[in-house]
Amino acid sequence: MRGLLFLLACAASFSAFAEEGMWTFDNFPSDRVKQSYGIEISSAWLDHVRLSTLRLSNCSASFVSSEGLILTNQHCIEPCLAELSWNDKSLIDSGFNAPARSEEQRCPSQQADVLLASEDVTARVLRATAGLSEVAANETRKRVLTALEQACEQASQHGHTGRLKCQSVSLYQGGQFFLYKYKRYDDVRLVFVPEGDIASFGGDPDNFQFPRWSLDFAILRAYDNGRPAKTPDHLRIDFDGPSAGQPVFVAGHPASTARLHTRAQLEFERDTSLPVTLLRAAELRGRYLQFAKIDPTHERMVRAPLNALQNIIKVRRKELDALNDPSFWLQKDSAEQRLRQSAKIAAPDPWAQIEGAMARERTLYMPYVFIENGGGFTTTLFRDARWLVRGTAERGKPNAERLHEYTDSAMPTIERQLFARVPVYTEYEQMTFSFSLERMRELLGPDYPVVHRLFARQSPDGLATELIAETQLDDAALRRRLWESGQSAVDGSRDPMIELARAVDHDARTIRAQYENEVEAPLAAAEERIAAARFRLDGTHTYPDANFTLRLNYGAVQGWMEDGVPIEPMTHLDRAFERASGVAPFKIPDTWMRIKNQLDMHTPFCISTSNDIIGGNSGSPLLDAAGHLVGLMFDGNIHSVAGRYWFDPANNRGVALHPAIIRVALDQVYGAHYLLSELSREP
Amino acid sequence: MRGLLFLLACAASFSAFAEEGMWTFDNFPSDRVKQSYGIEISSAWLDHVRLSTLRLSNCSASFVSSEGLILTNQHCIEPCLAELSWNDKSLIDSGFNAPARSEEQRCPSQQADVLLASEDVTARVLRATAGLSEVAANETRKRVLTALEQACEQASQHGHTGRLKCQSVSLYQGGQFFLYKYKRYDDVRLVFVPEGDIASFGGDPDNFQFPRWSLDFAILRAYDNGRPAKTPDHLRIDFDGPSAGQPVFVAGHPASTARLHTRAQLEFERDTSLPVTLLRAAELRGRYLQFAKIDPTHERMVRAPLNALQNIIKVRRKELDALNDPSFWLQKDSAEQRLRQSAKIAAPDPWAQIEGAMARERTLYMPYVFIENGGGFTTTLFRDARWLVRGTAERGKPNAERLHEYTDSAMPTIERQLFARVPVYTEYEQMTFSFSLERMRELLGPDYPVVHRLFARQSPDGLATELIAETQLDDAALRRRLWESGQSAVDGSRDPMIELARAVDHDARTIRAQYENEVEAPLAAAEERIAAARFRLDGTHTYPDANFTLRLNYGAVQGWMEDGVPIEPMTHLDRAFERASGVAPFKIPDTWMRIKNQLDMHTPFCISTSNDIIGGNSGSPLLDAAGHLVGLMFDGNIHSVAGRYWFDPANNRGVALHPAIIRVALDQVYGAHYLLSELSREP
Repeated sequence: MRGLLFLLACAASFSAFAEEGMWTFDNFPSDRVKQSYGIEISSAWLDHVRLSTLRLSNCSASFVSSEGLILTNQHCIEPCLAELSWNDKSLIDSGFNAPARSEEQRCPSQQADVLLASEDVTARVLRATAGLSEVAANETRKRVLTALEQACEQASQHGHTGRLKCQSVSLYQGGQFFLYKYKRYDDVRLVFVPEGDIASFGGDPDNFQFPRWSLDFAILRAYDNGRPAKTPDHLRIDFDGPSAGQPVFVAGHPASTARLHTRAQLEFERDTSLPVTLLRAAELRGRYLQFAKIDPTHERMVRAPLNALQNIIKVRRKELDALNDPSFWLQKDSAEQRLRQSAKIAAPDPWAQIEGAMARERTLYMPYVFIENGGGFTTTLFRDARWLVRGTAERGKPNAERLHEYTDSAMPTIERQLFARVPVYTEYEQMTFSFSLERMRELLGPDYPVVHRLFARQSPDGLATELIAETQLDDAALRRRLWESGQSAVDGSRDPMIELARAVDHDARTIRAQYENEVEAPLAAAEERIAAARFRLDGTHTYPDANFTLRLNYGAVQGWMEDGVPIEPMTHLDRAFERASGVAPFKIPDTWMRIKNQLDMHTPFCISTSNDIIGGNSGSPLLDAAGHLVGLMFDGNIHSVAGRYWFDPANNRGVALHPAIIRVALDQVYGAHYLLSELSREP
Repeated sequence: MRGLLFLLACAASFSAFAEEGMWTFDNFPSDRVKQSYGIEISSAWLDHVRLSTLRLSNCSASFVSSEGLILTNQHCIEPCLAELSWNDKSLIDSGFNAPARSEEQRCPSQQADVLLASEDVTARVLRATAGLSEVAANETRKRVLTALEQACEQASQHGHTGRLKCQSVSLYQGGQFFLYKYKRYDDVRLVFVPEGDIASFGGDPDNFQFPRWSLDFAILRAYDNGRPAKTPDHLRIDFDGPSAGQPVFVAGHPASTARLHTRAQLEFERDTSLPVTLLRAAELRGRYLQFAKIDPTHERMVRAPLNALQNIIKVRRKELDALNDPSFWLQKDSAEQRLRQSAKIAAPDPWAQIEGAMARERTLYMPYVFIENGGGFTTTLFRDARWLVRGTAERGKPNAERLHEYTDSAMPTIERQLFARVPVYTEYEQMTFSFSLERMRELLGPDYPVVHRLFARQSPDGLATELIAETQLDDAALRRRLWESGQSAVDGSRDPMIELARAVDHDARTIRAQYENEVEAPLAAAEERIAAARFRLDGTHTYPDANFTLRLNYGAVQGWMEDGVPIEPMTHLDRAFERASGVAPFKIPDTWMRIKNQLDMHTPFCISTSNDIIGGNSGSPLLDAAGHLVGLMFDGNIHSVAGRYWFDPANNRGVALHPAIIRVALDQVYGAHYLLSELSREP
């Protein structure tokens, strides 16, 4: 009976409320939402939600108190937890519960951004690039955007918000350009996180699955000048959560979709980049798992990177499946056909141009990945060496002439990571570095010039072992000294990792220039023309691909049908205990087991919703029509992975943590009463 | 100048002599060879070559003396070398050079088969299956073939050759059925093999590459009743080798091609089986490499399986590329189109039937691979446990009713492996077992019934560690005792690995029955009908897909054009020394370095030929028109991997070792003069 009831509810709520789209805040279809669903999304609502939503390094988050408390996922702050851990302890294992504000722990390299404003600069960019060749346009576009960022940051310096972080953003594949202006918090502290066993209950086997029971939340606090930030714009948590079928919204930063990519671009992913990425990741997983078996210390060293890697493997594997689905290609081809036929596009055919660029990318991809993009040198010590070599050289050039990751606007992020005192584990770095050198030799071949030079008298593993043992770059003070001393000091360094970074720099820059001129430039030119055609046809009644900028979408609390069986949209605490085997990743920690009898087993745990989200939305607030937080997104179901390429409303579902289980955790399990009262305070 | 000369020679020889086809000896196109190339391939030539050619476990080989000497590749006998090695020494490292016949070392589980005769039984099979349903036909076909094998072996018992090994063989996807009658040598001894560093010089980076310098040969000897076998049919080695452009032949056992597979079957490979296989192999490689770092003993444990695995990764990766090549699909579709249009095939459409079978296989593949096919239980100890559980049970049934791997004809091979005293390394078995259990949980999901049962209270790694530690099946004598005591002894065993094999047996058999009835049966029925249509159209002017039965093909010593650059068809010793870095896999051993100055640097090393070969042809003799051995196949170039799906004469090349370098090795480097004189004796 229950199944049938659900089916009816499901069908009703589905037709009533579920729609594709990752909308920018300045183009949210409020009219459509109002007409179809009777819900008023005012500009005040949009402003309040925008100012309450945060972007972390790889995730989303939201302010949930007036004194800077931030709610996000545990898995989003694993890098911070790893940085705050050392050989003998792991905050991922133990969790953390600051007994007082003074005990909140600063995350060494975490930042948090709030989008204050955005400015359309499309006309300026198009004016600057009009009539130029593809290569010149590509270079000019970057220069103009860098100059705009720089001017924006300088202008903001004297405003009431203080110096902003200005980033140029391309939307609709080059159809629009914006300057996004963020307030950046770079003092973000750890307040609370549950033990890893319950935060990632179900682990990799349950990742991207629903029903689900993972207590994947964490609480941080933003600080301003050493004091808790004042955050009048924050979300009120409705601990009772939403009901099945209820309309809900997700604000956050979806990282990347490829829905506007052409067939040629997607075939490149299917045939080249996905298999290469997956095979490298699978081997690295094998190395991590075997490395972890040495002893508990080694196991802790790989904990956070292993979790991230397993996630990548699952995502990329399902993306490959999506690109092997004939029904996807039918839909893609018909969309391209419609655009080709309806919008009159002058010769040359931009789809054919993209095909040409992709043919070139097939050749350049491996050298680019391994030599320029660092895939052959996977260790933070090489990353640091390259920052030192390139950063001190690029600093000497005019801002607009630099490689884009070394502009004045970008430098603080590099410095922050370069100067951070975080643990560097020799054995771990040797493993990843050896792996990457070995695969570089395999995939570029032993006769590729750079490879031949590197291994003329040494094996990849021998070189990795030697360089990691001998480099001094694990010393944060040395890195800072070299950076501040400048190019001549770096040029004079005999540190072997710096010598390596120097030795491959010319080749790497050459490959990059080839890649930018022969792949990126024609691609940008063709995409811009397709975007223009799409605007002529559809205006902005469409949304741009995700690119880790702020978006909003609407959906409902909703399950789906799996092989003819209905999946209900909510889980409860009882089933978590039933699922526990006592062994990770199905282990419920003692903190919960001890008081199991006192807990309400009907407490809702997780929710599935029909919102159109994707990686990067982790930590996003799930909102009701009043703008209250009624859930915390932390995952999608397995079908949501295909959302990179298309949105299938029949089965693409996001997965959120229910606020009721957060309340149970803070109140009954962890006794974090002061925190709970701060979260419950009326705004 | 040289390049141009080669180009002319290449163009001339190409048009003169290069053709696709892995022909059975009873259908070799001698007429065509004679008409086109003026070479007479007589039936005596065919008989002599057939009786001189051997099939090993995974390779080919040939007799090269009248006293049973066998020439094959070093990489073909790596399993034997590993079985003859223990913790503290590795024959793969050291090589082996028997100082006298009495020192030749028996390979514990090597066998060698010579094809004495074959018998067409197509009519009998078709008569038995006529009019039956797909499922009944599939079962009946197996029963009839088992009965034929049994009758053949029994009948041979009293003949002058002694008891033969009779195997049924399906050719042309069920278009023909044969009984192949082999003389089996099961006492095969190691005579000579060079050090691993020179045998696999270039290692994985150079595997499937040409130009090449790997001394990949080994010499075994077949024994009959404890004495060197009398082998009047053997090949004379022409140590001067062939010249560029010369017509050459390869006899051997190509293991598997899929050239007659339909689009639906190949899409299944591309989308499902290849990605799954590759990702598992890549992770296992990572585990092996990390495991090997523990110490030299661990490194030796994984040497042979790692080499095999790296080969699989390279092959499968390139197969995936081949199946992503649009020009391949054009060719495939046009061949299917031609057959559909020209041969009148009654409804139902067999291509559509195959599509249906493949759709079913997509669902059944994972459970089949992991539970029935052992992919979830990767350890020889589970393999042995299943043999004991199933073998003793199946033995009690009539021969024709058994699972096909337990027929009377198949039992000796199982017993040989089950009783062999070979090293079992606990840590190694724990690693592979843990890996396979973990991936089974990942890919079937924690809620799949078998998986759920296995891990209700334990992790995959915990279960693997415990079972490998507690099982006694590493004791060969115990395995033999249980096998000989029969089903009730096995049923009564409390050995935990046997308990595991028992616990999953019912599920495994159920999945197998589903797979056979829902995938194999409709596939066989549809393939048989397509094969019949193909015969109506082409007769037997075509060749069947490779299936590890004896084949012969013709080609020429020939290079190819790579990105517009000609690749010459022969390499010489000088470049091997130039390529050496001093570090494996580019290390030339001291035995060679010491006498470098005495060696003729112009000695030919490797040869590329246009023969149509594939994995399984390793160890095949390369023959001239006189039937002399002028090379030893050990590899193909990178383009040859696509040969699984189609033969592209423009760039598909086999790679052989030149006999001149074998002579230099035996004579000057290793001083194996008695061996060389036996090899040089006139027949």
